[in-house]
Amino acid sequence: MSKEQRAAVDALLRAAPFDGSRTPEELRAAFVALMADNPAPTGVTLTEDSLGGRPALRIEPQDGVTGGTILYFHGGSGVFGSPATAQHITGALVRRTGARAVSLDYRLAPEHPFPAAIEDALAAYRELLEQGVPAGQIVLAGDSAGGGLSVVTTLAARDAGLPLPAAVVAFSPGLDATRSGESMTTKHGIDPLFTRRSLEQVGAHYLAGQDPRQPLLSPAVLADLTGFPPLLLQAGTNELLLDDSTRLATRAAAAGVDVILDVTADVPHVFQSFTGSLDEADAALDRAGRFILDRLATVAAQAPTGF
Amino acid sequence: MSKEQRAAVDALLRAAPFDGSRTPEELRAAFVALMADNPAPTGVTLTEDSLGGRPALRIEPQDGVTGGTILYFHGGSGVFGSPATAQHITGALVRRTGARAVSLDYRLAPEHPFPAAIEDALAAYRELLEQGVPAGQIVLAGDSAGGGLSVVTTLAARDAGLPLPAAVVAFSPGLDATRSGESMTTKHGIDPLFTRRSLEQVGAHYLAGQDPRQPLLSPAVLADLTGFPPLLLQAGTNELLLDDSTRLATRAAAAGVDVILDVTADVPHVFQSFTGSLDEADAALDRAGRFILDRLATVAAQAPTGF
Repeated sequence: MSKEQRAAVDALLRAAPFDGSRTPEELRAAFVALMADNPAPTGVTLTEDSLGGRPALRIEPQDGVTGGTILYFHGGSGVFGSPATAQHITGALVRRTGARAVSLDYRLAPEHPFPAAIEDALAAYRELLEQGVPAGQIVLAGDSAGGGLSVVTTLAARDAGLPLPAAVVAFSPGLDATRSGESMTTKHGIDPLFTRRSLEQVGAHYLAGQDPRQPLLSPAVLADLTGFPPLLLQAGTNELLLDDSTRLATRAAAAGVDVILDVTADVPHVFQSFTGSLDEADAALDRAGRFILDRLATVAAQAPTGF
Repeated sequence: MSKEQRAAVDALLRAAPFDGSRTPEELRAAFVALMADNPAPTGVTLTEDSLGGRPALRIEPQDGVTGGTILYFHGGSGVFGSPATAQHITGALVRRTGARAVSLDYRLAPEHPFPAAIEDALAAYRELLEQGVPAGQIVLAGDSAGGGLSVVTTLAARDAGLPLPAAVVAFSPGLDATRSGESMTTKHGIDPLFTRRSLEQVGAHYLAGQDPRQPLLSPAVLADLTGFPPLLLQAGTNELLLDDSTRLATRAAAAGVDVILDVTADVPHVFQSFTGSLDEADAALDRAGRFILDRLATVAAQAPTGF
């Protein structure tokens, strides 16, 4: 089945590749239309909420939260997307873990360029801590730009002296605004969705003329990952952004961090989005769910007990 | 618990670091003594066997094989070690998967330098196929030099036109006889077991003056991994050989291969050997077991059905 499924996914994306020259309004409308066929899975409830001064979508197991909070960041190059456009992936993690997710509607560029999204994400994490959620029961997760946001928000939290989350999970994260990965070249044409030009065009909204050579814009090439919590990076081999993940994994390992780099062959950017129609998507989400449960259990086992 | 466990493992290894200047006979005796406290787990049976013209140790679940064959290669720099010295790790995989393992007593250097071990490993794999074991129900696995052997035997099998195994699992594999990884320098002193000098001293027996710049000696820097089966690489952040794994993972991803790089923080070379006394060892073996079961199930699901 899966070879045919992968071919179908590839054809679907090639039929309507990403066009970074469109206006932000056009990109937002197109992404809503593209994701309209991806509802949250059955068995979860969706509730409008707010966190850190921003709207948020709470996604919870219908039969009760068994533990843990996933602070989720949707994809969309920092320019488009919303908690609704990521609800199928976020819901898939909730179904697999029994955790509740809070998916943040962080501010978007060009109206709010770097570092507005990171400020919102850090404020949301801070509010979770202030609500009394133990850091060790929080997982930061996201896809694409939101995967990058899960990584750099953790760096910002560390640098702010906050307790760190139990784990970070990033699906096809964007981690290099300098676009210096080898896969930017070697996967040209293999990536059915992106070109260097389209990524640079849309990336310019978030960058807004700022120097990309900053750890919070290009962590895969510049971040000091010392003290980072356990990290899961998932990517497909058919993506320009593949080396954002391979390089961050290598940096994490060099810095003495627990890291799993989980690469699936012959699938595109954020292939997890095809949950339900692509076996590799569901298998990857299964592994992500197990990683989250493993890390929440490990932190819980290490926490001081008693009064 | 685990922080204390990791400190204990580190102290244990620092008290008796690896000395590559000892003779092969001394190294063999010392390794047997070191591993004498590591019996196979309960619940498995050990049977002397042979495969591909070499002795082998068959390790099976006491209550019956549920599926799959793990062809295992022990560690020991290609100079020392045997199926007996790896029986605790091999047995741990058997317990977690229900598969049978056949652990090969391949020829050792200096009596039999490169490529004798690969010839033996390939002959063993060939005999499994000739016995009628489907390639898709075989997993090649190993630790240290044996992890490297699992990788290069798969390359040799591919180049010989043989059907490829369902998966390859390598624990802290040695994958670079050129010793060019950054971790060879950055992890100096952090690695409690090895120095560059000790690795070069013992490595010289297997190399026997041959050019290390060959794919079957240095796959992490030279191998074309096109068509490689799904690969799991596990390593610790406290090892000189860390970048053998990070670089092979990056090469595998670039070649379009399914690959999981699974790095555990603050543990040494082949930390899985401390199964039973180090939580990270058992957790890593759990993940390896799940990977093997996932891959065997995926291949089985894709196999043609019917008569």
